[in-house]
Amino acid sequence: MSMPWEGIVSADEIAAYEAAGFGRPQAQGKRPALLIIDVQYRTVGTTRLPFWESIKEFKTSCGEVGWQAVDHIVPLLALFREKNLPVLYPYVAPKESFDLGRLAEKVPALMGVAAHGYQFVPEIAPRERDVLLPKKHPSAFFGTPLASYLIDLQVDSLVVTGCTTSGCVRGSVVDAFAYNFKCTVPIECVYDRSATSHAVNLFDMASKYAEVIPVSQVMQHIASLPRASS
Amino acid sequence: MSMPWEGIVSADEIAAYEAAGFGRPQAQGKRPALLIIDVQYRTVGTTRLPFWESIKEFKTSCGEVGWQAVDHIVPLLALFREKNLPVLYPYVAPKESFDLGRLAEKVPALMGVAAHGYQFVPEIAPRERDVLLPKKHPSAFFGTPLASYLIDLQVDSLVVTGCTTSGCVRGSVVDAFAYNFKCTVPIECVYDRSATSHAVNLFDMASKYAEVIPVSQVMQHIASLPRASS
Amino acid sequence: MSMPWEGIVSADEIAAYEAAGFGRPQAQGKRPALLIIDVQYRTVGTTRLPFWESIKEFKTSCGEVGWQAVDHIVPLLALFREKNLPVLYPYVAPKESFDLGRLAEKVPALMGVAAHGYQFVPEIAPRERDVLLPKKHPSAFFGTPLASYLIDLQVDSLVVTGCTTSGCVRGSVVDAFAYNFKCTVPIECVYDRSATSHAVNLFDMASKYAEVIPVSQVMQHIASLPRASS
Amino acid sequence: MSMPWEGIVSADEIAAYEAAGFGRPQAQGKRPALLIIDVQYRTVGTTRLPFWESIKEFKTSCGEVGWQAVDHIVPLLALFREKNLPVLYPYVAPKESFDLGRLAEKVPALMGVAAHGYQFVPEIAPRERDVLLPKKHPSAFFGTPLASYLIDLQVDSLVVTGCTTSGCVRGSVVDAFAYNFKCTVPIECVYDRSATSHAVNLFDMASKYAEVIPVSQVMQHIASLPRASS
Repeated sequence: MSMPWEGIVSADEIAAYEAAGFGRPQAQGKRPALLIIDVQYRTVGTTRLPFWESIKEFKTSCGEVGWQAVDHIVPLLALFREKNLPVLYPYVAPKESFDLGRLAEKVPALMGVAAHGYQFVPEIAPRERDVLLPKKHPSAFFGTPLASYLIDLQVDSLVVTGCTTSGCVRGSVVDAFAYNFKCTVPIECVYDRSATSHAVNLFDMASKYAEVIPVSQVMQHIASLPRASS
Repeated sequence: MSMPWEGIVSADEIAAYEAAGFGRPQAQGKRPALLIIDVQYRTVGTTRLPFWESIKEFKTSCGEVGWQAVDHIVPLLALFREKNLPVLYPYVAPKESFDLGRLAEKVPALMGVAAHGYQFVPEIAPRERDVLLPKKHPSAFFGTPLASYLIDLQVDSLVVTGCTTSGCVRGSVVDAFAYNFKCTVPIECVYDRSATSHAVNLFDMASKYAEVIPVSQVMQHIASLPRASS
Repeated sequence: MSMPWEGIVSADEIAAYEAAGFGRPQAQGKRPALLIIDVQYRTVGTTRLPFWESIKEFKTSCGEVGWQAVDHIVPLLALFREKNLPVLYPYVAPKESFDLGRLAEKVPALMGVAAHGYQFVPEIAPRERDVLLPKKHPSAFFGTPLASYLIDLQVDSLVVTGCTTSGCVRGSVVDAFAYNFKCTVPIECVYDRSATSHAVNLFDMASKYAEVIPVSQVMQHIASLPRASS
Repeated sequence: MSMPWEGIVSADEIAAYEAAGFGRPQAQGKRPALLIIDVQYRTVGTTRLPFWESIKEFKTSCGEVGWQAVDHIVPLLALFREKNLPVLYPYVAPKESFDLGRLAEKVPALMGVAAHGYQFVPEIAPRERDVLLPKKHPSAFFGTPLASYLIDLQVDSLVVTGCTTSGCVRGSVVDAFAYNFKCTVPIECVYDRSATSHAVNLFDMASKYAEVIPVSQVMQHIASLPRASS
């Protein structure tokens, strides 16, 4: 599989990162948890439509690239369930009367999403005992008790999926890296409304913060782990 | 001034962000502080050289794009000093025998930088009463008391300069946004070893987190503020 | 008013703190916010009863000392509303199937509180535009976006009320102090199930972190401030 | 061993906490780290003197109770070294020209400690590869990368020693609890300038956040663990 940033980030730039010593591979962890970030109707729409159709339902939708990612998260999630490994859902909480701040100023469209836009996409919705983490800010760690849950679960690594690659996925990966959790991003399981931003953010994460690899390699690794006890 | 991401992020993608309601302008703040991130010899070299020459001295150097940014930070810093506004220097602390973790694994070259690489570039070095913030992770907020200093200084906004655009600048801007500090990035004052990453990260920040504008506009705004009392 | 810790902390100990330079008075702030922490039926009971009666309804109740504090919070809250100053309600969120960790281990009784125990005490319940902050841990700052709200509201100080003095009040005051928000604790507006712990925690906070003063002095200060614009 | 708070916290209050379900015992962890907080000359003096003598050297000294704690930390530290378990030293960094904020206001004496006051007490000083964590605020977690080090070290629990019981020890224990690290406080290894505050803070921690037990029981547990590999 060629990397999604090839042809966007130049060969010369890739060589420059290489020369500077970036992007060394990192072993995947032994006690991973799965993060599914913001996979709610508001980011994909209630039906599978192209981007320009989909944003008529929700301005925040990424359209069909989102549904393609959902297709890839389905078997990955099933594998985590089979192995009894933890699954956590950081998600955008419905806006409340007291929510203002920088977000309302910078992206006001985010303030008026209809209530059913906050529902989880049923194909990969949480079930009993999954950890739900409403959040107000991009990173799943910021202003949430995510780190506390991960420490309690004795997790050493995260597989990060969902959206957007350049927003909450990127923000969460940078914080996970700073907390010293090993981080893996399965390429097909993250999505964004801009193909260029998607590709370059994958390049940035691969260079500095995470293993960015095909989902098949992630599944191979998870499949090799023993089933966790309850 | 055309934006640095034009021609890299397609017109169609820019239109998609526009349609989704991103990137609305944000007023600059009334009590700004200046962040100068990681402008140390290790990121520009001790002399002004092209990238491929410069990394022979420090693998982590960005070379001449760094020095060009220094040239633009000089008058901006002078203006902050003239207005008696706070200046803070988050910087990479020299590695110690106990520093390992994800960073050492992902970018091992960062562990062996020579001691003088940690010196601040003299042209824009800190002086008495500037706040120095050694950091171990990308964001200037993570694992540092930066937020506490800003609250004590009654700052409402940050002007973020330094490097790298796709690394510590981006990470710090995302956290500043989450903390609800208004954030401005003067385009000419940040730098990166990859031109594409630089441009796309500026696009991401402009779309979601910050005002990304020419330094001349930032200086015009700062010049319009009253001089702060000591 | 004599201080609640007199007779519990010895005169000699108070002299020792004095000699070490602790407990210097701090000016109250100009843009205060009111925190009302955990004043839910679970901490006072649905009716005003003595401690040993009250814990038959909720094991976590503090009984009548809680209701006495509510009596004092009522006029303080009215004054904050009159001045159009921000009011925030950090509160204990109902436990969910995924909530385990140290809390469940250390205080298992906290896990089985009936649903109506999480209701706010009506006398001082939140209204439209007050900030609600569900929390999982003692400090109102830990794992919540409280700091972000305070920065957005341009608050410089907090008046901290609610319960328990030795638990969430103390934890929140220590974090507020670390963030550099000025902190005031109106003595009659905080409560605890142990009179000794209550008194000594007030002493600790007065010595190191906050102004601990009669509510009348707090109200006098708030009354002197101009009404905030909306 | 009777508990230090007996006779200070009344039997009735202890019964009230018991009835409310607090203070259940918690297993000690399998991968503990040792925190030695603020054991610097500034908190004990350069020689073993009674409190009122000792504060003539450093206003912040706790005097001989500090030296008694040092005596108990010596064999505990030796045992951690023998087992190759991690040792971390959160410590008060020397004040700099830009350090102001709430601390300077509340406890101005802390700002003028002589330089050698910041030296570690030699009997239990750090050695190569121990983690040093300069801090500006009470909790060892606040504004420091402590959580990141603990996650990288795959620690599940902390043994917390040093000073003061009612200050940085208490603050660090509350944060460790919130992060879901199991916390043990060996009674003889923590110290404070107020005997009452010391006792009541131990009671609070025992009730809500930590195992508070004689150091002999902690050493028995650590001795039972296998030696960690490097």
